[in-house]
Amino acid sequence: MNQVKKIQNFLQTNNIEAAFITTPDNVFYFTGFRSNPHERLLGVAIFKEAEPFIICPQMEIPDAKVAGWQGQIVGHQDTENAWDIVVQTMKEKAGDITTLAVEKAHLTVERLEALVERIPALQVSRIDEKINDLRVIKSEEELENMRKAAELADYAIEVGCKEIAEGKTEIEILNAIELAVKEKGAAQMSFDTMVLSGPKTASPHGTPGDRKIQKGDFILFDLGVVYNGYCSDITRTVAFGEPSPDKREIYETVRRAEEAAVQAVKPGITAMELDKIARDVITDAGYGEYFTHRLGHGLGISVHEFPSITGVNEMKLETGMVFTIEPGIYHPEITGVRIEDDVVVTADGVEVLTKFPKELQIL
Amino acid sequence: MNQVKKIQNFLQTNNIEAAFITTPDNVFYFTGFRSNPHERLLGVAIFKEAEPFIICPQMEIPDAKVAGWQGQIVGHQDTENAWDIVVQTMKEKAGDITTLAVEKAHLTVERLEALVERIPALQVSRIDEKINDLRVIKSEEELENMRKAAELADYAIEVGCKEIAEGKTEIEILNAIELAVKEKGAAQMSFDTMVLSGPKTASPHGTPGDRKIQKGDFILFDLGVVYNGYCSDITRTVAFGEPSPDKREIYETVRRAEEAAVQAVKPGITAMELDKIARDVITDAGYGEYFTHRLGHGLGISVHEFPSITGVNEMKLETGMVFTIEPGIYHPEITGVRIEDDVVVTADGVEVLTKFPKELQIL
Repeated sequence: MNQVKKIQNFLQTNNIEAAFITTPDNVFYFTGFRSNPHERLLGVAIFKEAEPFIICPQMEIPDAKVAGWQGQIVGHQDTENAWDIVVQTMKEKAGDITTLAVEKAHLTVERLEALVERIPALQVSRIDEKINDLRVIKSEEELENMRKAAELADYAIEVGCKEIAEGKTEIEILNAIELAVKEKGAAQMSFDTMVLSGPKTASPHGTPGDRKIQKGDFILFDLGVVYNGYCSDITRTVAFGEPSPDKREIYETVRRAEEAAVQAVKPGITAMELDKIARDVITDAGYGEYFTHRLGHGLGISVHEFPSITGVNEMKLETGMVFTIEPGIYHPEITGVRIEDDVVVTADGVEVLTKFPKELQIL
Repeated sequence: MNQVKKIQNFLQTNNIEAAFITTPDNVFYFTGFRSNPHERLLGVAIFKEAEPFIICPQMEIPDAKVAGWQGQIVGHQDTENAWDIVVQTMKEKAGDITTLAVEKAHLTVERLEALVERIPALQVSRIDEKINDLRVIKSEEELENMRKAAELADYAIEVGCKEIAEGKTEIEILNAIELAVKEKGAAQMSFDTMVLSGPKTASPHGTPGDRKIQKGDFILFDLGVVYNGYCSDITRTVAFGEPSPDKREIYETVRRAEEAAVQAVKPGITAMELDKIARDVITDAGYGEYFTHRLGHGLGISVHEFPSITGVNEMKLETGMVFTIEPGIYHPEITGVRIEDDVVVTADGVEVLTKFPKELQIL
């Protein structure tokens, strides 16, 4: 309830009557209840004074209780209009509401129209930045979950390396990794696991398929594991057989870029400075045009969250922030290489959560 | 391009200058390009006259080409403002645009504000219903993919049944199912596979865990497989050991309800009539209060799409629509049971895509 209190303080300070929060990841953050409601309405309403409530599909009420939510839970049936229920319940709790903070980066135009239809005088403002500010600084308890998630990701890479063999397909290796991780008790991957080989490594967002591994291939693993609701995200690129000199040069360039950025992490450095440190290494080596994405992204309950580590983000990094550092070179004629770690900004500098070796593994 | 043409006709008829479509599933429907852009912008712009274009992250341009899109693709880098690029490109294609159709059920308030900031005179209207009308009627090619997806789902249930044994956990069985399905070449499940046992079957949206299977349990499988971008979705509930009479009674009630609804499917019947046919069977048997959700949902590129088979939807079902029929009884003291098939409305009545037997399997 600590985090709910912070929203209440925000509402009081800004003289906003209520907040209505509907992103599943944010609902989890404030209530402990994780659910994928698909098109059905899931939300938590927080008020300046009144007690908060969850609205969810009727059939999920028991799950919300099991998740530990102590407050009120209002259900809606598929035959009912959930918006009538939300507006009615808000009214019962806090009278006529005319100022409401919402997640503008998540709330759809249709949902806003449903609210305004029922409360024509409604003025909406953004709660996005406040929630991001809270979520971006991880508590020790959250970090503990992320350490475990990272440990499972390291293990997954280890399994992937052991599975590599001539003639095996990307999908076969992927399946073996996921099975092993789930046998360790992980319920879910952070996103669709990526195993790409040979020329396919040159696509930053490629799809694993039935390509068979061959001697001389680089193999790129990009994967993450969810532990207690928190994500990890790791990338390693390894060699199957002795690599050609041009491949090795690309690998070592990415590695130097990655390590330079990791070592530079400390409170007060900006996101754009970090991006530049890695990008300069790659540009100076002549591969700048092949590093086509930002350096990294925030990580936590969501696999992509704040802060965004781009060349235009002036945000100063602070103790407790967690994000990925993942430079890559995608050379269509030689190979793709990406190396990615999850890092925490600490008072002293940096804690690296992912620990699988970064020296080129030749298998 | 046939489906793009239909949107162009819609724009001409309604005198709207352009449509901007950003739901990943809809982008796939109109372009063949499937991508999960996370927070990055992905969209397809369709005009009354001008050629359409895709906007996507720069690094995904090669993937969009591989997916078969012949038209223009505009990339954006992480350091650029994607909305500036969209508005500029629209202007180059079709001059100053002041009327735009968007997916109000998907477009966020923030994204609408980004558009209006750049085009203050912009008037937006809904394209949602038009797209739903197109997507809800499946072509023979789409049905062929869905038949294959359903075949894989049947196979997954078969594997699940074979895996059941005293002391195995839900997660162990789940892993064996997913591994087997992926070995058959399926790249992805439609959603998180559900294997629930014993009392956990009484939660319609429960989470598989390390509960060990015991003699006398009912075990509920709810899963689906994606084939060529199209989803299946099946539920079967089976008995491990001879079931008690009260469990069997619940099973047979759900089965009668499910089969009554399946047999009633034909062009012209409404969604609410179908829901009532199944619900009446369950209510007449005295279990009405334990059937806490709608009868089913549309199925296709999305695992939940139109039509929604609820007790309040007056929509008449038409040839080519595909949806699930999935009544359930969730009795907290006895057991939960759900049975779910994927059905197509045909000129003659119904084609049932999922074929795993519905007689109670006692393992």
